[in-house]
Amino acid sequence: MSLSMYISAAPAQAGGAPSLEQAKDEYNRLIGQMIAAGEMFYRQNWVLGTSGNFSAVFSRKPFELAITGSGAHKGTLTPDQFLRVNDQGQPIDSPHQPSAETAIHLAICAACDAGAILHTHSVWSTLLSDMYGASGGLELNGYEMLKGLSGVTTHLRNEWIPILENSQDYSRLSREVFHTIKGKREVHGILLRRHGLYTWGRDLEEAQRHVEVLEFLFEVIGRQHCMAATL
Amino acid sequence: MSLSMYISAAPAQAGGAPSLEQAKDEYNRLIGQMIAAGEMFYRQNWVLGTSGNFSAVFSRKPFELAITGSGAHKGTLTPDQFLRVNDQGQPIDSPHQPSAETAIHLAICAACDAGAILHTHSVWSTLLSDMYGASGGLELNGYEMLKGLSGVTTHLRNEWIPILENSQDYSRLSREVFHTIKGKREVHGILLRRHGLYTWGRDLEEAQRHVEVLEFLFEVIGRQHCMAATL
Amino acid sequence: MSLSMYISAAPAQAGGAPSLEQAKDEYNRLIGQMIAAGEMFYRQNWVLGTSGNFSAVFSRKPFELAITGSGAHKGTLTPDQFLRVNDQGQPIDSPHQPSAETAIHLAICAACDAGAILHTHSVWSTLLSDMYGASGGLELNGYEMLKGLSGVTTHLRNEWIPILENSQDYSRLSREVFHTIKGKREVHGILLRRHGLYTWGRDLEEAQRHVEVLEFLFEVIGRQHCMAATL
Amino acid sequence: MSLSMYISAAPAQAGGAPSLEQAKDEYNRLIGQMIAAGEMFYRQNWVLGTSGNFSAVFSRKPFELAITGSGAHKGTLTPDQFLRVNDQGQPIDSPHQPSAETAIHLAICAACDAGAILHTHSVWSTLLSDMYGASGGLELNGYEMLKGLSGVTTHLRNEWIPILENSQDYSRLSREVFHTIKGKREVHGILLRRHGLYTWGRDLEEAQRHVEVLEFLFEVIGRQHCMAATL
Repeated sequence: MSLSMYISAAPAQAGGAPSLEQAKDEYNRLIGQMIAAGEMFYRQNWVLGTSGNFSAVFSRKPFELAITGSGAHKGTLTPDQFLRVNDQGQPIDSPHQPSAETAIHLAICAACDAGAILHTHSVWSTLLSDMYGASGGLELNGYEMLKGLSGVTTHLRNEWIPILENSQDYSRLSREVFHTIKGKREVHGILLRRHGLYTWGRDLEEAQRHVEVLEFLFEVIGRQHCMAATL
Repeated sequence: MSLSMYISAAPAQAGGAPSLEQAKDEYNRLIGQMIAAGEMFYRQNWVLGTSGNFSAVFSRKPFELAITGSGAHKGTLTPDQFLRVNDQGQPIDSPHQPSAETAIHLAICAACDAGAILHTHSVWSTLLSDMYGASGGLELNGYEMLKGLSGVTTHLRNEWIPILENSQDYSRLSREVFHTIKGKREVHGILLRRHGLYTWGRDLEEAQRHVEVLEFLFEVIGRQHCMAATL
Repeated sequence: MSLSMYISAAPAQAGGAPSLEQAKDEYNRLIGQMIAAGEMFYRQNWVLGTSGNFSAVFSRKPFELAITGSGAHKGTLTPDQFLRVNDQGQPIDSPHQPSAETAIHLAICAACDAGAILHTHSVWSTLLSDMYGASGGLELNGYEMLKGLSGVTTHLRNEWIPILENSQDYSRLSREVFHTIKGKREVHGILLRRHGLYTWGRDLEEAQRHVEVLEFLFEVIGRQHCMAATL
Repeated sequence: MSLSMYISAAPAQAGGAPSLEQAKDEYNRLIGQMIAAGEMFYRQNWVLGTSGNFSAVFSRKPFELAITGSGAHKGTLTPDQFLRVNDQGQPIDSPHQPSAETAIHLAICAACDAGAILHTHSVWSTLLSDMYGASGGLELNGYEMLKGLSGVTTHLRNEWIPILENSQDYSRLSREVFHTIKGKREVHGILLRRHGLYTWGRDLEEAQRHVEVLEFLFEVIGRQHCMAATL
């Protein structure tokens, strides 16, 4: 059952199906969380310009993803700058165009059943994704902060962040993202070279925690390179 | 038709000409946007002291530019700290003196038909404009963030930021700015050595996006130089 | 007399014993201070993800410690995310689980009679605790800022910050913390390697001052390593 | 005529003498500005712990200085944390003790007739005052930002910031400050080694502008040292 059905006509409630009001409330809750995340990320300089994009699964059957529209500034989002897309990335009841990067969000949903996906674009992720790009990824190990990643219970974790070459061919890039993370529960995020971080979680709270954990660790690794010459 | 006419006497409306009320609203909208931009830039330390200045075209015929007055702190601007100038940089209906850098704003308007011009003065633009000053400019290439610049559709963009020697002879400097960017649609900003960034856009939203994009990329390049020794 | 008694039944007031209302007020005052400290530390990026934890002694006899619960985000704490534990770390009247790091808070209370303990997890403390980990500690000397530490009256202070290897065996780690600081009035904080800072004070004001002083000095030492190559 | 007189009894107004109400208003205006400056400086990490102190001349004849009291946190100042001192540094009508650094404020007032004095304690001023301490000072030259200093009209300014060794003998230190800046109109600020910046101005607006200008330039010089190895 899609939200568009709710909105065009309130159906009779049956079983566990949410009412129109509940569906609206849930949608508003999700975009409210994304607006707040955008404000926080903007204060951190993780979504300057019109960089970054955010999504959250609104409905599983049929699949509907609430996502930021193309070109919006992520630090000052308003509800009308969001739209819903189906599993083909087509807008549902919206005049807005989804971002070209919607294909990557859908690939991540399909690959690891995420409930929310956050893409940030920080200075440190730009730098490290370039520095470690030729190695195909970045290893994080020995940091207590890793325990903020879902399922990680010790700092002695060997966390691997894959890095993919950036591309404007989002169709190809999204397939590459899919194959890189499909079936790999141990992966929490992926870097696009000189572009930034995609991370995800069961819900927006978890995805936002993953952003904070990974951006913190990128800064640690980046600053360590600045100090290393003196050791 | 100038705003001063509107203010001294409300003329009869004819054709598409805006009413006095509309003109006032438009003026207030523009300076409201510049006040908000100043607050944001101040939080970023891009307009410390009394550095920086902002302008937006209020009227094309006759040409009138709304601009921050001389000596104002850009983080705490109030409406009375703005004034309008004509295409010669002379104040219209205002006891304030325009900033000496008004000539540069006018040169940019004349050279590339900008609707808004923002000058910021960050630590990284100060450092990079010095480091690359002898080369006459700074090349930005391969960064996804470049797509935040108007008309840029790929990270494989070769963006050239010209750097001019700083000078207190603003008349000469503004002519140099004019000749550097005249007819070059591909240029989005210019650095004055050890002084800062001038960027512009069709309107204030676009110009502010360009500030964020370019300041982000300056920080990336600057920090890369801090890490480079360890590669 | 424990708070739980107050809450289950208001006893007759006797001598200097606080009334139920006074006890509630004191508890609310303590968690209000910790909520405010969390907001400030979050703005500083000292408690990203779910890192960090805070506590304050609520009652000495019997011993009761008000402490942040497990998994809470420290930048947006709410009163229901706190709980009280006894001197064995067991929750009092609470369905929440205390953080695994509660054992370290109790060890610090036992070792140096602190009234409040704050654990932050900054980029610089992560880096320095690693860089100086093999030396067993970090020396701070010659900085005026040291006078912000309780009992320090001159910048010519030789302040030693012990560094312990990080571990997920909090029981063993807390004993190590205890033995490292027991009887050493001159110690104001301790670092866990690649994990962060524990500092304390007579009360939350003093502990927060110690966080600010030590994090400032870590940043000074860290940045000095970045510049050192050029001296 | 001192404020204490106003407060104990409202005298008949004569000539240009301010009324009790006017004197109170002026005092409240000054401490309101210092409270706001403290909040801004705290966001910048320029007054962590209990570092920093601020003053403004309240009355010239007799000399009365409004100054932050000892031990206050400068980010969250309240009116009762200020006091007035006379030209000997003795409190007027106040139970508070002035900061030990009051002697330095008085020396600066005496040496260059400042109306307001601001002391900040940033990471960069701590680092640069140490790095350049042996040279007795730090030269700033060629930066447009210098024009934010009172009386400076070109970036080709050779600005010299004297650096004095830090000391806990504030009586001796204040005499040294006095002799360093006495009769030198061209000096806008002074660094105490590993301690921080003292700057001043005709009024609090000007002094705060000088803080912003000098802290900006310290960051530029400090970061340049981080990049220099790669040039």
